[in-house]
Amino acid sequence: MVKEKNVGTTKLASQPTIKRLPSYLHVIEAAQREGKEYISGTLIAEELGLEPIQVRKDLAVTGIVGKPRIGFPVNNLIRAIYTFLQWDRDNRAVVVGAGNLGTALMGYREFNRRGMSIVAAFDLDKKKIGKKMHETEVFSLGQISEKLKELRADIAILTVPSSHAQAVTDLLVKAGIRAIWNFTNIKIKVPKYVIVQKEDLSSGYAVLSVKMRLLAAVS
Amino acid sequence: MVKEKNVGTTKLASQPTIKRLPSYLHVIEAAQREGKEYISGTLIAEELGLEPIQVRKDLAVTGIVGKPRIGFPVNNLIRAIYTFLQWDRDNRAVVVGAGNLGTALMGYREFNRRGMSIVAAFDLDKKKIGKKMHETEVFSLGQISEKLKELRADIAILTVPSSHAQAVTDLLVKAGIRAIWNFTNIKIKVPKYVIVQKEDLSSGYAVLSVKMRLLAAVS
Repeated sequence: MVKEKNVGTTKLASQPTIKRLPSYLHVIEAAQREGKEYISGTLIAEELGLEPIQVRKDLAVTGIVGKPRIGFPVNNLIRAIYTFLQWDRDNRAVVVGAGNLGTALMGYREFNRRGMSIVAAFDLDKKKIGKKMHETEVFSLGQISEKLKELRADIAILTVPSSHAQAVTDLLVKAGIRAIWNFTNIKIKVPKYVIVQKEDLSSGYAVLSVKMRLLAAVS
Repeated sequence: MVKEKNVGTTKLASQPTIKRLPSYLHVIEAAQREGKEYISGTLIAEELGLEPIQVRKDLAVTGIVGKPRIGFPVNNLIRAIYTFLQWDRDNRAVVVGAGNLGTALMGYREFNRRGMSIVAAFDLDKKKIGKKMHETEVFSLGQISEKLKELRADIAILTVPSSHAQAVTDLLVKAGIRAIWNFTNIKIKVPKYVIVQKEDLSSGYAVLSVKMRLLAAVS
């Protein structure tokens, strides 16, 4: 028997599709809480202000196909999205930079529900080191290498001041980090085997600004 | 003479294009600091890990066209992006919900550089009311209507707990807010004339998770 090269649910998906999956999850979980067994793509589309065809195309990446006139099976779809995103695993992260944003992210319960445990935080400030923030202990940046191994964390949420971003990144890479979620303004440089996801809060502000301009133009 | 219906730089742009403009701005401003007069689309593309054709297409929305073999005029391009996004104006915002995330956003200097002044914050917590956070005064939520008018703010950055999101939104709409930047998990309901931009921190986490899965699959 020839083994298929298929890697299960590992289909290719575009970044906009992946970015929409968490909002689908919110809507589908709400249906689950209401005891619904099926949810239609049209309903999901209405709830989120999207086109039904877009919703069906996006959800196809999970491998779950909706039935005509019935919709998607709620429980299976939720499970499939979790599997697709690997949110069914224990994704262990550390917050590097325990300032306001870092602290806010430590307290963001949504991450926890989505399989991410924030197992430690790191900072340079001696007043913070040794304290707990949202039940997460803050360690000295110097301990990062040892702590990453001990806590088996492979994601770093980078919330240091931009001026420190590259130096701290180098430290993280040396310590064997696998993925960096970069909340700084700097495009950090890393070796090819390290994943970086840049979060740019100004992007949302840009979209908001353009929407306001367009609204002003028509009103 | 017939007046043209052209509305200047108000071209239509896709959301992904708009979202990329702030990162272009970072690269182009770095070139400006280095005293460069021109910057090539290829260089911008390299810096950001994008295709040159994408960069040229995106930047076309600003109305600035690059010269072959020379590139885009740095100063004009920066000015055109600011104008396109209306970041050359005084965009007055308030933060509603002075928790960790709200406080982090008040201290996010990038917004200030991009034309957004956070002129006030609102909270229910009496311990916070009357205090200043990052030089922004916190008022009682009950004062919001009066304060929005007094401070001429039309953007609300919504960082209240999700359970309060809709009730606070209704309050904001009554108070005459024009745009809401929604950092809660809830899809808030507003009248058609109010703009909502939803920020979903889980979207970035989703992309990071898929990238990690793909990397694990090839290594």
